[in-house]
Amino acid sequence: MTQSESDADLSRDAFLGGGLQILQPHQGYRAGIDPVLLAASVPAQPGDSILDLGCGAGVAGLCLARRVPGIALTGLELQAQYAELATQNAAENGIDMTVILGDIAAPPTEIKDKQFSHVIANPPYFDQARRTAADDIGREVALAGSAPLSDWVATAAKRTCPKGTVTFINRTERLPDLLSAFRTHLGSLEALPLAPRSGRAAKLILLRGRKNGNAEFRLHQPWILHEGDKHLADAENYTQATVCILRDAGALNFPA
Amino acid sequence: MTQSESDADLSRDAFLGGGLQILQPHQGYRAGIDPVLLAASVPAQPGDSILDLGCGAGVAGLCLARRVPGIALTGLELQAQYAELATQNAAENGIDMTVILGDIAAPPTEIKDKQFSHVIANPPYFDQARRTAADDIGREVALAGSAPLSDWVATAAKRTCPKGTVTFINRTERLPDLLSAFRTHLGSLEALPLAPRSGRAAKLILLRGRKNGNAEFRLHQPWILHEGDKHLADAENYTQATVCILRDAGALNFPA
Repeated sequence: MTQSESDADLSRDAFLGGGLQILQPHQGYRAGIDPVLLAASVPAQPGDSILDLGCGAGVAGLCLARRVPGIALTGLELQAQYAELATQNAAENGIDMTVILGDIAAPPTEIKDKQFSHVIANPPYFDQARRTAADDIGREVALAGSAPLSDWVATAAKRTCPKGTVTFINRTERLPDLLSAFRTHLGSLEALPLAPRSGRAAKLILLRGRKNGNAEFRLHQPWILHEGDKHLADAENYTQATVCILRDAGALNFPA
Repeated sequence: MTQSESDADLSRDAFLGGGLQILQPHQGYRAGIDPVLLAASVPAQPGDSILDLGCGAGVAGLCLARRVPGIALTGLELQAQYAELATQNAAENGIDMTVILGDIAAPPTEIKDKQFSHVIANPPYFDQARRTAADDIGREVALAGSAPLSDWVATAAKRTCPKGTVTFINRTERLPDLLSAFRTHLGSLEALPLAPRSGRAAKLILLRGRKNGNAEFRLHQPWILHEGDKHLADAENYTQATVCILRDAGALNFPA
């Protein structure tokens, strides 16, 4: 899309308590808290290089750059309109980000020639074979994609430095597929379920693996997103620890 | 071992609040609460047929028979001394159980010619490649085995009726291996982590699959075994729901 076409179709949304301003389509895939939680969980240090696979409008990588200054951030995105938005969002927020247009299943040379300290991804949540397509093509590719999860994990693992980490966020339903792919390429796997409330099943899960890691798998106790037993109208009611992540760019540390 | 040799080496232990009396070796593999929790989780009805793979001294199957009367119970056990104990334990508790000596990786005809409503297993907890062997051979086979988990799951799935269930209990660390094997052979997978206390990582996990099932994977909220934040000396301190299982042969129902 051109800039003039895009303006009316875009919203400008605040993330990290206003620390990031993100342009994203009104229609189509829109980032929620998932990429923010993903970014919060990455054990990155200043100076590390980061690859955000399927970066969309850039929210995950830009959140990470806000929390950890001095990272070298690269995004790979299949859809041109999202890649352009990621570039624009990085510039408007004063963050250096290299955005590369390309397919995770066959990454271009700029990606294939490099390895990164940490690779992150918020891949499509639904298995294309199992769902009815969304009307919006951009949204459909972001939600159900065309590459299988195993391709995402294979590319992520190949592009990670020795001892570097790969972290994905996805729907808990896809944990068997994700774990199968992770165990093929990575070690020291750790899963952190994200439960909407205490005593409720986790709908989302963070999964991390380490290149050449050899520690046993760990399933951590669930991270609780909201206080209380049920949803209260007009109240987000995030737990204090979750507020630190969403408003103040705090870290979501996996238990030691 | 012969009967005269065995008596001095055996203890008689009460399970289900005394509802089961189980002979098992002083040395070697000794059943704890794990097979009791496994048995409590099986959605069996009177009249169902049950196969307990690697049944040991019979605790899981016999617990299930106490809770659900009128099941047809079969155990498969590799080690003759445990198979004999299972037969003896069934008889002494007045429960019909067919115990068959054989290897789960190459089951004998009596098993291969049948399918069962539900198959259960409490397979070896440690990967032989990763551990130092136990001194006692019986204990070592029970703890680390020789067949890979994938063989256990493949045999369990083959011996399950259409729409029947397979339920395993194991250390949480082995979830990636277990899930990979389960997803190859079964559908409608559900995992129930068993946490020692609220807010603590689960050390054990129950994993269930359904033959020909096609529902998405579910990771349930953890089942909490003990009350309070820490272990109190001389107090077991089980949660009320866990007491119902361990003392009163209650069910451990997966969330609906």
